[in-house]
Amino acid sequence: MTMNAALPGALRAATPVYSDPAVAFIAANDFDRSTLVISRDRVAAQYDALHAGLGRAHIHYAVKANPAPEIIRLLVKKGSGFDAASRAEIELCLSQGAKPGNISFGNTIKRASDIAFAHSAGVTLFAADSEAELDKIAAHAPGARVYIRLIVENSLADWPLSRKFGCAASALPALLDHAKAVGLVPYGLSFHVGSQTRKAEFWNPVLDQIAPLWNAAIAAGHDLQLLNLGGGFPAFYGEHVEAPRIYAASVMRAVAARFGNVPQVMAEPGRGLVAEAGHIAAEVLLVSRKSADDMHRWVYLDIGRFSGLAETEGEAIRYQFVTKHDGGDTGPCILAGPSCDSADILYEKRPINLPLALGCGDKVVIRNCGAYTSSYSSVGFNGFPPLDVIVL
Amino acid sequence: MTMNAALPGALRAATPVYSDPAVAFIAANDFDRSTLVISRDRVAAQYDALHAGLGRAHIHYAVKANPAPEIIRLLVKKGSGFDAASRAEIELCLSQGAKPGNISFGNTIKRASDIAFAHSAGVTLFAADSEAELDKIAAHAPGARVYIRLIVENSLADWPLSRKFGCAASALPALLDHAKAVGLVPYGLSFHVGSQTRKAEFWNPVLDQIAPLWNAAIAAGHDLQLLNLGGGFPAFYGEHVEAPRIYAASVMRAVAARFGNVPQVMAEPGRGLVAEAGHIAAEVLLVSRKSADDMHRWVYLDIGRFSGLAETEGEAIRYQFVTKHDGGDTGPCILAGPSCDSADILYEKRPINLPLALGCGDKVVIRNCGAYTSSYSSVGFNGFPPLDVIVL
Repeated sequence: MTMNAALPGALRAATPVYSDPAVAFIAANDFDRSTLVISRDRVAAQYDALHAGLGRAHIHYAVKANPAPEIIRLLVKKGSGFDAASRAEIELCLSQGAKPGNISFGNTIKRASDIAFAHSAGVTLFAADSEAELDKIAAHAPGARVYIRLIVENSLADWPLSRKFGCAASALPALLDHAKAVGLVPYGLSFHVGSQTRKAEFWNPVLDQIAPLWNAAIAAGHDLQLLNLGGGFPAFYGEHVEAPRIYAASVMRAVAARFGNVPQVMAEPGRGLVAEAGHIAAEVLLVSRKSADDMHRWVYLDIGRFSGLAETEGEAIRYQFVTKHDGGDTGPCILAGPSCDSADILYEKRPINLPLALGCGDKVVIRNCGAYTSSYSSVGFNGFPPLDVIVL
Repeated sequence: MTMNAALPGALRAATPVYSDPAVAFIAANDFDRSTLVISRDRVAAQYDALHAGLGRAHIHYAVKANPAPEIIRLLVKKGSGFDAASRAEIELCLSQGAKPGNISFGNTIKRASDIAFAHSAGVTLFAADSEAELDKIAAHAPGARVYIRLIVENSLADWPLSRKFGCAASALPALLDHAKAVGLVPYGLSFHVGSQTRKAEFWNPVLDQIAPLWNAAIAAGHDLQLLNLGGGFPAFYGEHVEAPRIYAASVMRAVAARFGNVPQVMAEPGRGLVAEAGHIAAEVLLVSRKSADDMHRWVYLDIGRFSGLAETEGEAIRYQFVTKHDGGDTGPCILAGPSCDSADILYEKRPINLPLALGCGDKVVIRNCGAYTSSYSSVGFNGFPPLDVIVL
């Protein structure tokens, strides 16, 4: 990256997006390779907004969304907890000052040796959704607190989750009993409404599924303490989302209406905390048509599905693009990455509109890329380096 | 990785698969994390077989399939050329002793500065499929030889390629003329039959498309020298494929029948050269059912789509699995990776059969993973390390 005083004027234009520190930084600099620029001030502001809306619910940041150490350190200072997916994420949080009591090991698929590590490090809260996992936890973290993850049916999220995580409602009673039988503390329940759940009201049918299970567990004699709401807090990708404080407060009202005064509530925002704080500086490598009568241009960027934009799989997450030509005439484009992989196409079924003036070498800002980009990036597919990250 | 003398007997059983050096190595060792073990002897044998079948066609190994430096060095000694996708791949080949004249820059989407680097390093052969790319090459590698890549219609490959690469047949004459007009040498044509083209006869309809274009270009006065056959050479994933020498010889007969005595022929095997030489040592992290009446088990491995098995996307490539329980009763499984990502599922639409005795901690050998695994691996999604690689 080199400083560059001579900038595309449009990237500095006085529209709201340019008051964003990461966008301003991208506009003011040139980059040798695609780079994620993320602003701690924006993460802090988002944390404050979610925290205000969530009230007494404790935030456990989903580290997998963006494991930049500077972000972890900031959130430690803010009082956040952490939802870790692996031993390395636990080590990361500890290295940045997190207390083990503020770290939950939320992956329901854990290596036995990683459970033992977490236990030895002082982590006492683990997720499970099966007998076999409970047995592993009992063997390697005896006496730990566990929360059972439930499958959610009929998610209304933009990215509904698969059935990979969670047990069926019918399996819950036996799992709670089993946890107790193997010496664990059945501490609570968790679920996930689905990633990018754009409207707070979409939580209602999910909470309606979980509440009777919670009450039945209590009635069966389990002294549940923790309701873990999981993630699902949305980011702006072009379609309207409510402001984070209002959204979170609505969710908490819906929780209170169904669960009453649950002793502890936890939420695990990842995308909702960091996505809007970061943007990617990318470059156009080629603009072409396959033939003279091709209706669509093909626009090839220096970043693709294997170098940071994995969430474009199935065209699920539709990023927004800012160029110096914005405001001019536009036309439909198929957008693709730079690798020699034919699957490395970002948007084809639903082409995107980009300025007709766009050409090789033009800088493109991909907005709201703070989550699920840098750590998804491949180590070097096709010889392209992983996504660079600059934390402001 | 630690040595372990006490081994699952079945992994050492005297079946053909265990005569493979990488399988034997996996059986004889324990691994702390999922690891690709790849045998240079097997790569060498595969190179020899393809070389024998391809005859006068020069092999340019598709480096992206597996960029392990030891493999590149071996292939340099064998006399192979290299198809590079990026500056880093060119640098890798040069560092392992490849002559720049044996390296082609085969990506049709190149960064201008990478073209300039390649030119300065002595690379003289470049791919293009558009006027804009030809202009970039002319500006940064003046006088270079270029081959024009064509789109192939109606591929019969297991993994047909998208329209991302190549120009339509109708665009070819203008591109050849443009190359000459900007001072480049229109040197040849290239195409790609599609990845994992299992039968040599599937090449015929593709060659039938390309041959008239080649002849028309010659008739138009272009002194074409090079026919680049691309890749598509298959690996064994459970469905029958012809032996590499026989397959390659069949392809060359089909080429000769349609193109006659083309001055130079090039082939770019990647998967077909390295896939069968490598296997992944993985571990079962969890086996569970979502409810008591769940028809399928879920089997979770310590490797998934984001840590090396990206080619399971859409369940396109179906790997084969070897366990110490093979031979016992089996049942259908949904197979998934270890990350907290709901998309990290390997096989669900078409579940796979695995032994009912399979349990947490069991070693699993994933066969024929030498291609498109290690370099696809993410830098650390969910805190999981990239796929480890051991070259024998």
